Amino acid sequence: MDDVTAYVQELGRTAREAARQMNRLDPGLKDKALLAMADRIEAEKSDILAANREDLERAASEGLDAALVDRLELNEDRVSAMADGLRQVAGLPDPVGAMNDLSMRPSGIQVGKMRVPLGVIGIIYESRPNVTADAAALCLKSGNAAILRGGKEAISSNRAISHIMRTVLAEVGLPEGVVSVVDTPDRAAVGALLGMPEHVDIIIPRGGKGLIERVAAESRVPVIKHLEGVCHTYIDADADLDKAADIAVNAKTQRYGTCNTMETLLVDAAVAGAVLPGLGERFLDAGVELRGCPRTRELVSGAKEAGEEDWATEYLGPILAVKVVDGLDAAMNHIAAYGSGHNDAIVTENYTSARRFLREVDSSSVMVNASSRFADGYEYGLGAEIGISTDKLHVRGPVGLEGLTTEKFVVLGSGQTRG
Amino acid sequence: MDDVTAYVQELGRTAREAARQMNRLDPGLKDKALLAMADRIEAEKSDILAANREDLERAASEGLDAALVDRLELNEDRVSAMADGLRQVAGLPDPVGAMNDLSMRPSGIQVGKMRVPLGVIGIIYESRPNVTADAAALCLKSGNAAILRGGKEAISSNRAISHIMRTVLAEVGLPEGVVSVVDTPDRAAVGALLGMPEHVDIIIPRGGKGLIERVAAESRVPVIKHLEGVCHTYIDADADLDKAADIAVNAKTQRYGTCNTMETLLVDAAVAGAVLPGLGERFLDAGVELRGCPRTRELVSGAKEAGEEDWATEYLGPILAVKVVDGLDAAMNHIAAYGSGHNDAIVTENYTSARRFLREVDSSSVMVNASSRFADGYEYGLGAEIGISTDKLHVRGPVGLEGLTTEKFVVLGSGQTRG
Repeated sequence: MDDVTAYVQELGRTAREAARQMNRLDPGLKDKALLAMADRIEAEKSDILAANREDLERAASEGLDAALVDRLELNEDRVSAMADGLRQVAGLPDPVGAMNDLSMRPSGIQVGKMRVPLGVIGIIYESRPNVTADAAALCLKSGNAAILRGGKEAISSNRAISHIMRTVLAEVGLPEGVVSVVDTPDRAAVGALLGMPEHVDIIIPRGGKGLIERVAAESRVPVIKHLEGVCHTYIDADADLDKAADIAVNAKTQRYGTCNTMETLLVDAAVAGAVLPGLGERFLDAGVELRGCPRTRELVSGAKEAGEEDWATEYLGPILAVKVVDGLDAAMNHIAAYGSGHNDAIVTENYTSARRFLREVDSSSVMVNASSRFADGYEYGLGAEIGISTDKLHVRGPVGLEGLTTEKFVVLGSGQTRG
Repeated sequence: MDDVTAYVQELGRTAREAARQMNRLDPGLKDKALLAMADRIEAEKSDILAANREDLERAASEGLDAALVDRLELNEDRVSAMADGLRQVAGLPDPVGAMNDLSMRPSGIQVGKMRVPLGVIGIIYESRPNVTADAAALCLKSGNAAILRGGKEAISSNRAISHIMRTVLAEVGLPEGVVSVVDTPDRAAVGALLGMPEHVDIIIPRGGKGLIERVAAESRVPVIKHLEGVCHTYIDADADLDKAADIAVNAKTQRYGTCNTMETLLVDAAVAGAVLPGLGERFLDAGVELRGCPRTRELVSGAKEAGEEDWATEYLGPILAVKVVDGLDAAMNHIAAYGSGHNDAIVTENYTSARRFLREVDSSSVMVNASSRFADGYEYGLGAEIGISTDKLHVRGPVGLEGLTTEKFVVLGSGQTRG
């Protein structure tokens, strides 16, 4: 075994032991630590910013691209926001330990479920150093140990933030191993982290599609992920067309770069003539390029021609694919063929169409008469979001604290044996 | 692509389409089909038994071992039990479509979750032809399509059973693709089934540890599994020793070959002298070989010496490892080091010890004062069991119908856009 693998495995063993200790300690210590971390991060702001400047200078000398540098850069406000984030997590209800559905069985045993931490969570992310504090806080609150692997471009910032967090952990009496940073730029460390299911229970990659695909392909540990959001809004024949237009504009233009942004608009042929010319103008006025099917282009003169690949593309920018379809079934068939299972919405006043869409569309979020931009942990009331899952297992949709836990069966008896 | 892969992929495409159709059809058809299948299986008993005889004759000519032949063999009672199993599944509540936790958000959208089928489930199993009916029934009831890959030794029986099921599906108006059997003895078919995550949502292997390890190592589709049950019962210093002895005897001897059978008994040193001599005699009288630590062997003269490997062994037979430990922490450390996360029990009258054990032991079932033999879907009231999961993700412990489903978020609005 090479040195990097041995180092990462030792981090894993320490994290596993720290996670076990968490199950023994007073849960109140978690919030105490989070609040103390927030105070310490604000008090040591200048140290964090100094470390961040080292990263920025290295980035400049290596000619990193501007978008990456923007994500890498911290300033006073961003550090304060980081501290506030920790305080918000401290204020959330603790998901761990809840016992539910206890019922008495004919044998006399009582059976139910207890919510418990997953154990050790590996987070693999790029550039943004605030993820170090955010992700570690969510893992800590849910009783897990976190092993953080940030990008090498942010290594000084990540070191400074995690140093503060570990110092506070030790001060309040929690094991330092609850938060650890893989402190080597060697890329082999990622492979080692993905290859030790005995020490790591789940991997959460945060970053671009390339990173996530690599992690998912290589990991021997289960991964919570979403690859992309090819999100649809379908304007039904029975839609309120004013609502429909407002929802469609909001779903596309409120923010372009997010995974819950609408990428394809589907319109029932029965109302296309009534809604598309005006709605098309609104998109074009807002600077959105339209790529339409032939029927769309007849109704919206400024629309370009859509190719087959447009139906499957997450633009993450001011481009929208538009297709006129013949009814609800055609819309749902299109979504089944081209969607990414992230979120899909229908605009309709028709009860049966709404009910069918909710039941039949197989996406992590299905919506009636609402903007796709609502598909978000905060908007859903989860209190926090560590990511989004478009997989069907374990957790689906926005992932909050509960997604970082699991349940075990508890059996309470008074001496029962099986006959 | 070779022919076998192409054939299995076509089964996958058909199953995926059938699963989509299930979301459109009247859920009552599922129970109608299950009851009609039960009747048809009893009516065509002689055809099933004739097919089974073909398998048995081939097994005899190939010299299959006796245990395998026993599992392969059907008779009138076993076929009736198969039909009764289908009727029981029909009588269970339908898990699909339940909408829960709908709450109004400040934005005015209502957010909740809807329980939905996973989609397509691949079942890979050995010899027992009744699994064909059982597993297909559970998949159907939970709204999924099943692709069944039984052992080649049972291919005629599986063909006969699935032929009946598919005929009934077509008759009641459900897609035949809901139940399909991989009808080739070619082992490459298993690889193809494990390699098409686009068509299969989950794989459930049922069989020996070798089969399950192979499936888990090779699969590109998530697997619900348990490898083994190295289950512990710990007799605490504050145990009621009569209860403790009865529970321990039941946990080991009620059935030897099941995964929830106790394999290691841990006894607190404070009560070892009081409980182990008598309890050891009971085990030896029952024909159980004891393999003990040195302190155990001082108290039970008939106990053999345990080696390091005994603490990690699932005997699945009349052998028990016994260790005297110094208190609760030592017991939980032993379980953490050697356990398989299946189920572990404490016998104690001490509230704090019971509470600590429930919280700190990381197993799919944790028990107080009950026999480990209760770790079972029927005993837990799940109504049915398709397997047991010792993994932490998606589902943990006995897996009933709910484990074959997932949830999606539903959002109900009245035109909301995000500000």
